[in-house]
Amino acid sequence: MNMKKSKVTLNHGAGGRQMGLLIRELIVEKLSNGILERLDDSAILKNNLSAGRIAMTTDSYVVSPLFFPGGDIGRLAVSGTVNDLTTSGARPYALSLAFILEEGVSFETISTVVDSIAKAAKEAKVLIVTGDTKVVEAGKGDQIYINTCGIGFIEDDALQISSHNLKKGDVIMVTGPIGNHEIAMLAARKGVDFDMSSVESDVAPLCLPMQKVLVKAKQLIHAVKDPTRGGIAGVLLEMSEHSQACIEIKESAIPIDKGVHAVCELLGFDPLYLANEGKFVIACEESAVAFVEEFFKDAKVIGKVSAQAQAQAQGEGVKKGVFLEVLSGGIRRIAPLETTQLPRIC
Amino acid sequence: MNMKKSKVTLNHGAGGRQMGLLIRELIVEKLSNGILERLDDSAILKNNLSAGRIAMTTDSYVVSPLFFPGGDIGRLAVSGTVNDLTTSGARPYALSLAFILEEGVSFETISTVVDSIAKAAKEAKVLIVTGDTKVVEAGKGDQIYINTCGIGFIEDDALQISSHNLKKGDVIMVTGPIGNHEIAMLAARKGVDFDMSSVESDVAPLCLPMQKVLVKAKQLIHAVKDPTRGGIAGVLLEMSEHSQACIEIKESAIPIDKGVHAVCELLGFDPLYLANEGKFVIACEESAVAFVEEFFKDAKVIGKVSAQAQAQAQGEGVKKGVFLEVLSGGIRRIAPLETTQLPRIC
Repeated sequence: MNMKKSKVTLNHGAGGRQMGLLIRELIVEKLSNGILERLDDSAILKNNLSAGRIAMTTDSYVVSPLFFPGGDIGRLAVSGTVNDLTTSGARPYALSLAFILEEGVSFETISTVVDSIAKAAKEAKVLIVTGDTKVVEAGKGDQIYINTCGIGFIEDDALQISSHNLKKGDVIMVTGPIGNHEIAMLAARKGVDFDMSSVESDVAPLCLPMQKVLVKAKQLIHAVKDPTRGGIAGVLLEMSEHSQACIEIKESAIPIDKGVHAVCELLGFDPLYLANEGKFVIACEESAVAFVEEFFKDAKVIGKVSAQAQAQAQGEGVKKGVFLEVLSGGIRRIAPLETTQLPRIC
Repeated sequence: MNMKKSKVTLNHGAGGRQMGLLIRELIVEKLSNGILERLDDSAILKNNLSAGRIAMTTDSYVVSPLFFPGGDIGRLAVSGTVNDLTTSGARPYALSLAFILEEGVSFETISTVVDSIAKAAKEAKVLIVTGDTKVVEAGKGDQIYINTCGIGFIEDDALQISSHNLKKGDVIMVTGPIGNHEIAMLAARKGVDFDMSSVESDVAPLCLPMQKVLVKAKQLIHAVKDPTRGGIAGVLLEMSEHSQACIEIKESAIPIDKGVHAVCELLGFDPLYLANEGKFVIACEESAVAFVEEFFKDAKVIGKVSAQAQAQAQGEGVKKGVFLEVLSGGIRRIAPLETTQLPRIC
């Protein structure tokens, strides 16, 4: 195949020889791991556990544009799914990879994305074991949509990490500055007429550092969430709702890069709602803070599960809520995001 | 929500309150099973095996139109994935379910599709355990695309079912008449100006009958494939390639419904290449035929792994190939499908 010139046609989705070529030469060769290249209808995996639990998660990625400062749809499709597995305490094991290609997308674009997938999978030490490719007519897609589904193993039955599992006295941490992914996506969009080129997406697989934290502090970590769409506000509200707990965070404690801060000021975005693709929000016992900081160098404590806020809220007849102590010292209740800040950021 | 009038907007994909409502009311409520409704980033599943293997498979569904005689995209998305798991001998256990919704698709359409997913999952005794919803702008999708990924357990280490596993002396069976799905899709498309309304898609989950066959005949079944895109020709070629074996089939033995036959005659389609969504092609020892016929009432023996064809082919310097004895008695070598017969049929 002439990689530079070829483009996807409907024939590449038809189950025939052309589809076979595209799958083998553009995709499977780059991701080869001893399982994927069997190309059976199902991948067959060793069951690594004598007991324990399996975590399973899925995400489709429809990000636009495909390439943005700091990453691309391929890196996103691996990172997002291994990070979701990691939030349950699972060790990511295998990913599926499904493409919906728009007629006309170039082989070169696909090839670049698959290279990025291969690199991110290696970084996360996860195998792509099975896949699928569909082609839709021009105008029925947007170059490339990807779905990845991941499974992971939770080897230790004592591990109970869930947004339903916040405890009184927990501190709330974030593993680094917030908002970079969404601002980088904004910068990548056409029509943005000021310089935001300094902001790069934080998209990254976080499974390996989190596994190291869990080795040292597994009983102390109660909940881990990745603040993608809806931002840290979204995941804090979810933790609060699922655990029926009140959370209090301090605006002054929340790490935020200068570039992100500047854009938020200018355009009126609230960084609490901005998407991240390489951060965790963690609820843990105070004694776990040092372990989180050891493996996530930019991690900060930003708040706590608050009995005081709980009591105050109960006075109002509710058992949950997220409360922000703003810079001026006042307290603001965080509301769920009603509408989108920016569509198709992941 | 007013189900009749509501349509999806970009806000329904933004990770906020509106997305939460759509997911809960239109999707999760209908599929409730004790795991999905936790809405954590990963589903946590019991590991049912003390040893053994896990099968994993994925497919995206971009079928157009969404609703067609005999089925819809929802039934397809469950059936296709559980059938893929079944071809490895696995017992389907859990599915993920990811939607890419086009801005403007009606809540009523989504609701109907989710009802169909719920029904098919119940029929297949499989749980939908995790999911994802994305929204793309009008003109960047086609109402609804679905991805399902499935995992299943292969409980018995003795079970070795694979397209790499054909043995000399195996017979080739198909579990019923071929071509119905693709002809039903053709009938459902606009602009088809003759009556094919009698042909319905065969889309169905086949895991339960196949499990019954395996209980009785597990050592005798060597390969199982579902002949979707590319038809039975495609899967026979794959078996031949993967097992480096020659396969001989008889045209006169291949079951085909009258309606499908009529359309093939009229439009010049070769039914061997037509997609099926509720059939298996099986390679097994002759002693397994009665067991397959017991649980698949319309199953027929259509050919065999042929030493004679093998010898003849080796004379030509090749070790593999699929040979069709046509009605007139001649032998035709089956070639891979070069291009599509009909796009977006699954």
